[in-house]
Amino acid sequence: MIYKAKLPNINSFQTKALNFSFYPYDLELKHAFTLANSSRKTTPAMLAEIEYESFIGYGEASMPPYLGENQETASAFYSKVDLSQFNDPLLVDEILDYIDGIDDGNHAAKASIDIALHDLAGKLRGQPWYKIWGLNPENTPNTSFTIGIDQADIVRQKVNEASSFKILKVKLGAGNDKEMINTIRSITDVPLYVDVNQGWKDKHQALEMIHWLDEQGVVFVEQPMPKTDLEGMAWLTQNSPLPTVADEALQRLPDVSKAHQVYSGINIKLMKCTGMREAHKMIALAKSLKMEIMIGCMTETSCAVSAVAQLTPLAKWADLDGNLLISNDIFEGAKIIDGKISLNDLPGIGIKKL
Amino acid sequence: MIYKAKLPNINSFQTKALNFSFYPYDLELKHAFTLANSSRKTTPAMLAEIEYESFIGYGEASMPPYLGENQETASAFYSKVDLSQFNDPLLVDEILDYIDGIDDGNHAAKASIDIALHDLAGKLRGQPWYKIWGLNPENTPNTSFTIGIDQADIVRQKVNEASSFKILKVKLGAGNDKEMINTIRSITDVPLYVDVNQGWKDKHQALEMIHWLDEQGVVFVEQPMPKTDLEGMAWLTQNSPLPTVADEALQRLPDVSKAHQVYSGINIKLMKCTGMREAHKMIALAKSLKMEIMIGCMTETSCAVSAVAQLTPLAKWADLDGNLLISNDIFEGAKIIDGKISLNDLPGIGIKKL
Repeated sequence: MIYKAKLPNINSFQTKALNFSFYPYDLELKHAFTLANSSRKTTPAMLAEIEYESFIGYGEASMPPYLGENQETASAFYSKVDLSQFNDPLLVDEILDYIDGIDDGNHAAKASIDIALHDLAGKLRGQPWYKIWGLNPENTPNTSFTIGIDQADIVRQKVNEASSFKILKVKLGAGNDKEMINTIRSITDVPLYVDVNQGWKDKHQALEMIHWLDEQGVVFVEQPMPKTDLEGMAWLTQNSPLPTVADEALQRLPDVSKAHQVYSGINIKLMKCTGMREAHKMIALAKSLKMEIMIGCMTETSCAVSAVAQLTPLAKWADLDGNLLISNDIFEGAKIIDGKISLNDLPGIGIKKL
Repeated sequence: MIYKAKLPNINSFQTKALNFSFYPYDLELKHAFTLANSSRKTTPAMLAEIEYESFIGYGEASMPPYLGENQETASAFYSKVDLSQFNDPLLVDEILDYIDGIDDGNHAAKASIDIALHDLAGKLRGQPWYKIWGLNPENTPNTSFTIGIDQADIVRQKVNEASSFKILKVKLGAGNDKEMINTIRSITDVPLYVDVNQGWKDKHQALEMIHWLDEQGVVFVEQPMPKTDLEGMAWLTQNSPLPTVADEALQRLPDVSKAHQVYSGINIKLMKCTGMREAHKMIALAKSLKMEIMIGCMTETSCAVSAVAQLTPLAKWADLDGNLLISNDIFEGAKIIDGKISLNDLPGIGIKKL
């Protein structure tokens, strides 16, 4: 709990305008990223900066192609943003209401501004956001490390490389589910999270597979069935011996209520929900509905990962390996120490630009 | 934007325990308070204090009898509270999770601790909560002033006394609705909020009355029908020319989703929802559901009123006259200036004990 930031004169906050800038950045993946239906070697991103006096807040939009945003749509959105109308960067709520109202969609682009503004406001206050939110940094969970769908020898190699993690997250849904699990179980006994990415289509087969996974030491099953099959998912959740978690089925705050009694929990990602402000509120709502909280990410630099890590004292489960999957991270921030998310004392979102 | 509080050494926050104390306080009403079904001259309250080093956070539980809490139930709840286990008062979220988990119900008692802890944490940070939440204090709405159900001559007298307010809130539902409105309209043309306190039982008659009220310059109708009549309320809201607002039908965060598509808006009160932390999140959820936000209060001192006033930049409508209705207020805080809620620069919830 040591705050090293030099605090500005808080009385001078209304004298200068906010300066917003951005640039494209391609995230290079260490390994090709394979989901049930796609594979790729890079993820397009945009890096955003909001400057105020001598302080800079950093933000990031990571835009995996299947979500519909890209560097062109983000640039087009940013071109509509006029932050020069604001001269008090601590009015986070008012500024983000303005950003959200500019256009529909553009969740990742909005998240980049939300993150940069939180980073800036935290730096001006000299406090990390977990502290501003009144959260205990000791309560962070372990993070899982994701093992993509692949051939057995590559899966074995990846599992061996991930030996420092206390939990693995396994992608299923490509037809070789039992083979994937058996391959991993031939090497390690760590708890497994399973992510099906909507890959199972029949609820009865899904339930049968979940019963088998339960016997293999799986903790929960993420997005087992298509996000549109609410009836099938509600039935599956009611009958499943393992918790189910909504991912593709859920983006923003109102989706939490829709996921209630359909899934056991929700996977919150900044790029889906427009940023830290809304993520914080989704957690509160889900908790009040007795739903489980998982916090995830896309492939992202340590900028966006450290931003969402500020919220992890509130999460039961976390899958924050996005920055570990890229070879050209340009930020240093929250760390994984002995498998557990470790928050530092730096103000804002807790990052340094490298 | 001037923060006068002397900041403590933020590195020393983990060295001392929190000290919690409380005492009963009877709020004396200037006029007997008349609802559709009851009348009274006092409201029992409890005042709470949380002390940390040289700082004291103040909180309050106001307990109108129809809500089921009283000084005995609050004392019993407080006796289960052990804040000495916490040595970092900035861990607001963790401490309030503990408080909420002690027992069900006890919403006002929980709110008193929530308010005191927010006051303390804001004082330790040297900032008012509207600033910590990133809200613009210029965006506060006008408040209404409540005119209870009474005989025409007393109503006229009260309306004349309330001439500094830009909006009046009128209690209806006692059978003399048109007489009440006509009496007020014989004196003033200010916009009127109407609060029926569940007094109307037939949805068709309710709709007919709302059409008449619409012609009389009424802005919205609060809790027109019994809170249990969801079907009738949904029909009424769908057909009503005026917005409807849930009050008795709504207490905590999950109730917001239940009120969606049944009412147009919600009336948030700290004594119903357990305090500032949950109120803030209810507003976020209601806004995301495109519902209108009203902020209200019980008869309360300036302690609880100033606490909820921190959130009013987010509200469209406010009815914060609770401290103006009592003759023995012992705090000074948020003011009503020319009918508008005015937030000061004091840290925490912005109050001084008199």
